Amino acid sequence: MDTPVGSGTLYWFIERHREDTGLFMGARRVWTYRSNFQDIAVLETETWGRVLVLDGLVQMTDRDEFIYHEMLAHVPLMTHPDPRRVLIIGGGDGGVLREVLRHPEVTRAVLCEIDPMVIEVVRRHWPEHGAVFDDPRVQVLNEDGNQFVQTTYERYDVVIVDSSDPVSYSRSLFSPHFLAAVRRIVYPSGLYATQCMSLLYHLDFVKGFYRQLQAAFSNVALYTAPVPSYPTGWWNFAMGSIELSFDPDRLPLKGRSIEFLRLTRYYSLEIHRSAFTLPNFLVQELQYAHGTDR
Amino acid sequence: MDTPVGSGTLYWFIERHREDTGLFMGARRVWTYRSNFQDIAVLETETWGRVLVLDGLVQMTDRDEFIYHEMLAHVPLMTHPDPRRVLIIGGGDGGVLREVLRHPEVTRAVLCEIDPMVIEVVRRHWPEHGAVFDDPRVQVLNEDGNQFVQTTYERYDVVIVDSSDPVSYSRSLFSPHFLAAVRRIVYPSGLYATQCMSLLYHLDFVKGFYRQLQAAFSNVALYTAPVPSYPTGWWNFAMGSIELSFDPDRLPLKGRSIEFLRLTRYYSLEIHRSAFTLPNFLVQELQYAHGTDR
Repeated sequence: MDTPVGSGTLYWFIERHREDTGLFMGARRVWTYRSNFQDIAVLETETWGRVLVLDGLVQMTDRDEFIYHEMLAHVPLMTHPDPRRVLIIGGGDGGVLREVLRHPEVTRAVLCEIDPMVIEVVRRHWPEHGAVFDDPRVQVLNEDGNQFVQTTYERYDVVIVDSSDPVSYSRSLFSPHFLAAVRRIVYPSGLYATQCMSLLYHLDFVKGFYRQLQAAFSNVALYTAPVPSYPTGWWNFAMGSIELSFDPDRLPLKGRSIEFLRLTRYYSLEIHRSAFTLPNFLVQELQYAHGTDR
Repeated sequence: MDTPVGSGTLYWFIERHREDTGLFMGARRVWTYRSNFQDIAVLETETWGRVLVLDGLVQMTDRDEFIYHEMLAHVPLMTHPDPRRVLIIGGGDGGVLREVLRHPEVTRAVLCEIDPMVIEVVRRHWPEHGAVFDDPRVQVLNEDGNQFVQTTYERYDVVIVDSSDPVSYSRSLFSPHFLAAVRRIVYPSGLYATQCMSLLYHLDFVKGFYRQLQAAFSNVALYTAPVPSYPTGWWNFAMGSIELSFDPDRLPLKGRSIEFLRLTRYYSLEIHRSAFTLPNFLVQELQYAHGTDR
């Protein structure tokens, strides 16, 4: 960006993470859209770069999207010995898809994004993401993620939920009904991963969802990563599998292509292992064995 | 707190982390003080609890202070086989001191806080911290930390710098001159630890300080933890020693009292190990061997 902050009008965007606190960003330019599903905005900022906002909540910023997207894609994909068929629910910004496609094992990646306008807006403002949607391995569906998993006959090695938070359209993506359907469409030797909110603001949600996950899958785990533009800047993720072990000290690396590790800015195999170490208060809340299967 | 947010006036406190972005908090009550050194404020908030603000920058909140203070105290203290004599530079809020005193090995803890009014304010608004300052093992000095380390004849097993950011009075605490003095007053078998800013906002500072640290100490390491109320919510720490190994897989636990681990809310020995795993971009920037001595 050529123009220094302060030389022009700043449009102050405010995200209330809770009633009395949140993050603000000064944008030099703002584009707003209204789809059939939500308000969409793109901000051009100095500190965060381009920012994608859905219904008033920051979804992606140039400054920190690499952490969120790398951790939501590479942790499940490196936990699987041969991830060929990947389903992404949500993820219309293309970030998780970009990271998934770095794995040459992947032969088919289905992106089920309910709102086609999100993809249109991303293509316009993040043109470098266009190639991601156009990859021949990719199929983009504009369907409701919950309805899709309830009705599809396809099976997947990895199912990733990259949704907005569990309000409005995304609420169904955190329900027992949804988890039961995911369990049906993921191979027993495959796994499911989802973003799962902040441990400091949404601990009751995380605990409740963890119990649901335990009811749906034999092996479950939580892991965390810093995501500065999300509430509290410290984000939680969850995984579930019927048969696959999540032990980060015994990743099935044999025969895997790991050239992508030269391209990642946050993720590494060491980060993968460390991410499963949960803070003491959560260990106590969940009576959870560190980073290993239950 | 009995009164719900929204039932009364909210005083909006805004911290600009950078020119165009930052955190806001709505306070129901605000107390302000002016010492010889700085503005001091205490906010009463719903989400963050009580908040200590120095010169407009959040220093401590009830919601997340445990992470910062546990990580700045227990990581160095558990790296040392027998930490008896501890010096804390800054730390007037008493949080690091509280955690240091959980170690029965500690026989003397010197707190060198330049501003006595910080301690007065903390005693008034965080009365539970009063006992910490009154512990018979503690000596509180109100001196400039840099001058103190330049002139003292005492030696320490662990020196911890819990300062505000390297502007104004705290700038000298990140200088080569200061590091040389710390090297002199810490036993060769001891170690030094400091807060060290955000990897996402202050990467150039971190890299520069890391080089200074390498010039002053044979063994150096960085580690991170989530601190939601600080800029980017992801904080960095640094350690240095002349002789002590920092390998988190070989902590000198023999004979150590670890009862305090039942009281920590963030820190655990597993968290200690994981905290030294640095993101790929920093590894590349520092050409740094993961979590082990150079």
